[in-house]
Amino acid sequence: MRRRDVDAVVASSPENVTYASEYWGLSHWARRGTQVYAVVWNEPARSVDLIVPAALADLVTETVSAAARIHVYGNFVLGSASLPDNDHERQLLELVTDAANPTSGPELLLKVLRARLGSGRVAVEHTGLADGALTTLADGLAEVELVDAGPLLREFRAVKSDQEVELLRRAAQITEQAAESALIAAHPGATETDIAQRFMTALIEQGALPETTVIGTGRRSALPNALPVERELRSGDVLRFDIGCRFGHYVSDIARCVALERVGGSERSLYRALANGLEEAAALLAPGVGTSEVYAAAMAAARRDGIPDYQRTHCGHGIGIANYDLPNITATSTEMLEPGMVICIETPYYRLGEFGLQVEDTFLITDDGAERFTQAPRELLILTDW
Amino acid sequence: MRRRDVDAVVASSPENVTYASEYWGLSHWARRGTQVYAVVWNEPARSVDLIVPAALADLVTETVSAAARIHVYGNFVLGSASLPDNDHERQLLELVTDAANPTSGPELLLKVLRARLGSGRVAVEHTGLADGALTTLADGLAEVELVDAGPLLREFRAVKSDQEVELLRRAAQITEQAAESALIAAHPGATETDIAQRFMTALIEQGALPETTVIGTGRRSALPNALPVERELRSGDVLRFDIGCRFGHYVSDIARCVALERVGGSERSLYRALANGLEEAAALLAPGVGTSEVYAAAMAAARRDGIPDYQRTHCGHGIGIANYDLPNITATSTEMLEPGMVICIETPYYRLGEFGLQVEDTFLITDDGAERFTQAPRELLILTDW
Repeated sequence: MRRRDVDAVVASSPENVTYASEYWGLSHWARRGTQVYAVVWNEPARSVDLIVPAALADLVTETVSAAARIHVYGNFVLGSASLPDNDHERQLLELVTDAANPTSGPELLLKVLRARLGSGRVAVEHTGLADGALTTLADGLAEVELVDAGPLLREFRAVKSDQEVELLRRAAQITEQAAESALIAAHPGATETDIAQRFMTALIEQGALPETTVIGTGRRSALPNALPVERELRSGDVLRFDIGCRFGHYVSDIARCVALERVGGSERSLYRALANGLEEAAALLAPGVGTSEVYAAAMAAARRDGIPDYQRTHCGHGIGIANYDLPNITATSTEMLEPGMVICIETPYYRLGEFGLQVEDTFLITDDGAERFTQAPRELLILTDW
Repeated sequence: MRRRDVDAVVASSPENVTYASEYWGLSHWARRGTQVYAVVWNEPARSVDLIVPAALADLVTETVSAAARIHVYGNFVLGSASLPDNDHERQLLELVTDAANPTSGPELLLKVLRARLGSGRVAVEHTGLADGALTTLADGLAEVELVDAGPLLREFRAVKSDQEVELLRRAAQITEQAAESALIAAHPGATETDIAQRFMTALIEQGALPETTVIGTGRRSALPNALPVERELRSGDVLRFDIGCRFGHYVSDIARCVALERVGGSERSLYRALANGLEEAAALLAPGVGTSEVYAAAMAAARRDGIPDYQRTHCGHGIGIANYDLPNITATSTEMLEPGMVICIETPYYRLGEFGLQVEDTFLITDDGAERFTQAPRELLILTDW
């Protein structure tokens, strides 16, 4: 923040509020429009003001670091026979029943900013703001320069803390495990829906939530966003998973393919080209390597080993509390890998009318290379016993 | 739309795009920022233009009514050994590889609107629009009056089609069933998390997805947004569910409570007061009844039967593709019930530091009364066999 010369960053989207404050608001995540903000100050370093509606204050007092200052707008009816004997409940009761609470989120945000700032520069994320909120801030903070916090927050999020890494590692591994479990449901007469249900159940039993469940079989495996339908699995089908879960608010994104009972020659050799693309990109991963080099390695191997006209806009992306964090792994990306980045590398190939194949794994960039969270098979697996 | 004197309505949020076009876009729902629009025209009646990025076009051609005109911005790499022999795949290939596609969503939206409108009035939903999109439209449609479509779309959505009613009925009943299944996991030593996992698994096995899983036990049952944690269940606890799923894109929202093994006298009598509130409100439901009367009936019964100081901002709300559809059931609401509305009636009561109780069911307003989708017990159930 100092480097960017901003005095405060205001997060407004669910992802960035949770990232900045660890606070997760049910209706903030579930519904667009709910106004929650986390203000992170440069001085004192990383101190946080959290602004929530009264109806969402309960989990703030229960979960958020005691160091954060909590501000509530509106009121909420909570009964209490006597003053609760526990700190967070007592604090909650005071916060939500205070008749002096402002009625709107933007109004309270303005008040919190004005209390500490007469001038300077504040970065405000637009994504989660209500209509007119930005005007309210600009009018009320005439001497403060307001800039867009969106790009800044994406940059901050690119390098993960140890705690974030642990969540991302578990999320990826839970997903890999759930895909394996889901194959138990693959038998003649089963449908894509059956596989999807088994996959999601396996996520939940490991403490995660379903997030991305793209499962296509046969020619539907070539649809990039295949939403599972009641199509019956057939011998010779490719089954493509492009899947992820949410674990402790962090997400995963990996891909797996199997051929059912038997496999055409082209699926097998094309898969190998894609897997080689992933492996050669993976072998490069280390701090200081350009993401465009990683992209180039993946593309070159896939083209060399069986798909001469292989084309992709990207061969991967960072991952974190959002599915597409920085860095982007593209031909023109100028970003360099840094320790603590967590990235997905992927080489999907969609043959419309025929089948789709995809290889995708997740990696942590370490001080001297990379740690692989998941391991896609190097050969297209054939599910013979089904 | 004729009554509102608008020539077209532009939906931009995931809920309203799916509502208006039946199109569901994976990254549109999962990530803020993806630009997808459905333009619904007054003439020809209800005709639809759907605007999507190339990466999301696959499910459009597969699922959306052939009557909708599909417009794609950007390009996406899809291989094809030969021209696919199936209509939607052929259409998809043409749409995503057309070099003439505009590069941005707002630009394409402007083009689609200008092709049919020189003047008039268009309602545009702000929620899902990218920064600057509204300015792009206003500049490019100088003779067209742009108004906010948000309130209009909420009004349209209040009265459900038969197909929507069927999804909402199933969603509510699946949720009720899953809550019953979840109680199988309630035994000494089990945690809130165990109950939540069993609940979500039961949703998935019935073809639904988890959406709202508020489960609190003991004093945590008094936290309105209780996110399940590793707290162990104890004899004498109240277990409160405020839960919902998503089924065919439509959601549910019901509440259930049980006491574990034994129950305090006040929980039992307070629950009865809340259940009576729900029942007396439910008995009123019919077309032409004011929602403020429904609110008043619920409040009066709860106060009369055991909670003299009972207070609530609302005692229910419409439900549909979003958890809070119109009508609002409040003291000051001026809306009247109409056939086809689907509403939740609820009487929650949070006793901070002690316990929370909540009764909530879902109803369809019919031509001469109401159909009840779910049935909360009139007495607080005690789980004796655990």
